Amino acid sequence: MSFDRLIAKIKETGNPSVVGLDAKLDYVPEYLIQRFQEEDGASLQTAARAIFAFNKAIIDEIYDIVPAIKPQSAYYEMYGYYGMKTLAETISYAKLKGMFVITDGKRNDIGATMQAYTSAHLGSVKIGDNEIEPFGADALTVNGYLGTDGIKPLLDVCNSRDKGIFVLVKTSNPSSGELQDKLIDGEPLYARMGDLCETWGADLIGEYGYSAVGAVVGATYPEQLKELRARLPHTFFLVPGYGAQGGGAEGVASAFDANGLGAIVNSSRAIMCAYQKENCDPREFAKAARREAIRMRDDITSYIKIK
Amino acid sequence: MSFDRLIAKIKETGNPSVVGLDAKLDYVPEYLIQRFQEEDGASLQTAARAIFAFNKAIIDEIYDIVPAIKPQSAYYEMYGYYGMKTLAETISYAKLKGMFVITDGKRNDIGATMQAYTSAHLGSVKIGDNEIEPFGADALTVNGYLGTDGIKPLLDVCNSRDKGIFVLVKTSNPSSGELQDKLIDGEPLYARMGDLCETWGADLIGEYGYSAVGAVVGATYPEQLKELRARLPHTFFLVPGYGAQGGGAEGVASAFDANGLGAIVNSSRAIMCAYQKENCDPREFAKAARREAIRMRDDITSYIKIK
Repeated sequence: MSFDRLIAKIKETGNPSVVGLDAKLDYVPEYLIQRFQEEDGASLQTAARAIFAFNKAIIDEIYDIVPAIKPQSAYYEMYGYYGMKTLAETISYAKLKGMFVITDGKRNDIGATMQAYTSAHLGSVKIGDNEIEPFGADALTVNGYLGTDGIKPLLDVCNSRDKGIFVLVKTSNPSSGELQDKLIDGEPLYARMGDLCETWGADLIGEYGYSAVGAVVGATYPEQLKELRARLPHTFFLVPGYGAQGGGAEGVASAFDANGLGAIVNSSRAIMCAYQKENCDPREFAKAARREAIRMRDDITSYIKIK
Repeated sequence: MSFDRLIAKIKETGNPSVVGLDAKLDYVPEYLIQRFQEEDGASLQTAARAIFAFNKAIIDEIYDIVPAIKPQSAYYEMYGYYGMKTLAETISYAKLKGMFVITDGKRNDIGATMQAYTSAHLGSVKIGDNEIEPFGADALTVNGYLGTDGIKPLLDVCNSRDKGIFVLVKTSNPSSGELQDKLIDGEPLYARMGDLCETWGADLIGEYGYSAVGAVVGATYPEQLKELRARLPHTFFLVPGYGAQGGGAEGVASAFDANGLGAIVNSSRAIMCAYQKENCDPREFAKAARREAIRMRDDITSYIKIK
């Protein structure tokens, strides 16, 4: 009913980072694609199977040093329902290895429909006498533009199944300010969205002081990161934009509290494509991912101390 | 590159309404579920197959009198990747019957990831020498909270493949005002989002004066519907909330222009579950859906005249 499970994993690994598993087929080494293409031709199924093999190898190399993965739904939907099968299998495999899984779907809708998204990604559906978890992640990113009744079904499942959500507050992209920075009664829209996170999570606070309602705040806006950390004491942050998008570890440090907790920093491409940057044997892609995950951990923890 | 194809279908059928195909298993008659349960047990596959059979029968009964369907992604994701297969099959079948398909996914993300959602739902992916459309809808609903760079990839595909998008402006749910009604420089956030729709669509205007960038505006807020119709002359409206959520045809009429164009009104549950309300033989569910679709068309067109 809070982010305690995630925080415990962060403390255990001494690593407040999450690996974004957002594999486009371009990221997957050619030899791996060929293996499946021989069986299924140049098809969505081939793409989906190659991506699962890629994800699985990376999970096998990082699960002991990284607390969580964040698969981005878009990159699975891109390969149709075979891609969604790979999403389900990736989530399932990472959980089996003890990792915390955040599905990055930025879902949003009115209450009744949000209930369906909640069942899909964090809950279960009942079919006949069976109760089945369709995707079964530990947490889901969501968009709060529709207000409280679009968030309410998620809070129920956070409470009953020990799950979490991350609400988009201040996103990492260049145009995030177009709407999010606009002033409402003298304060930016993102701050108001942040305040709603505190309200929504008020009854779901765990032993570290953080609720089950987190916020997405981009590493590319370190000023806002600092301001929001002070403003939202019970809101755990998911911080995208480190590395590839230009956010540095020093700026990211302001997302954390005095105990080195309160945030988890995402890196996707830099880890998945570390083998390309290293220019090593493509068959070493998972080991290269591990090396980059260690480099990132050490970079961030040179600025913060987890107590 | 605009909503001309949709408008042509609306004129052809004399019907500015869209049927939301958002089937929960509860909506599907028991005899249909049983047929698949005998083969696959109480599984996600059974649910997904029963829902496709349900959708297909409804499409067969309405394709000649209704211009479009709007499958809501949440209700397919709820049945895992088998559900997503049903989404793809439903879209494909409706297009085969000449219907316009709006996938209601309310997707949103930063630019690079939005490109993946665009490829998934409106575009194609390249695998080896093959170019494959994963879901292939005609239009997609999206959430604009991230600003222009999260919308840009969609505009490219609207232009190159004659597709459309609907941006959430003023949603139909009770708490939509929590953020959307807040004033920014004296004007509500939803009006500012609406203005962005006009900007985003400026280079994609078709022969009826409407661009490829539409807006979602709820039937439950007729005042705002009227205000936005006047304010956004090139923005085509998708209007949810008619019927079940309490929006009436008289209020909905203000979504239309002087030619009876400019909007399409959604009904989901009232049509899918018409057989329950009629209390007719469940085997007549598709015929009951047709009767309700005709009733809805006549209700709306008693207030507007399509020229």
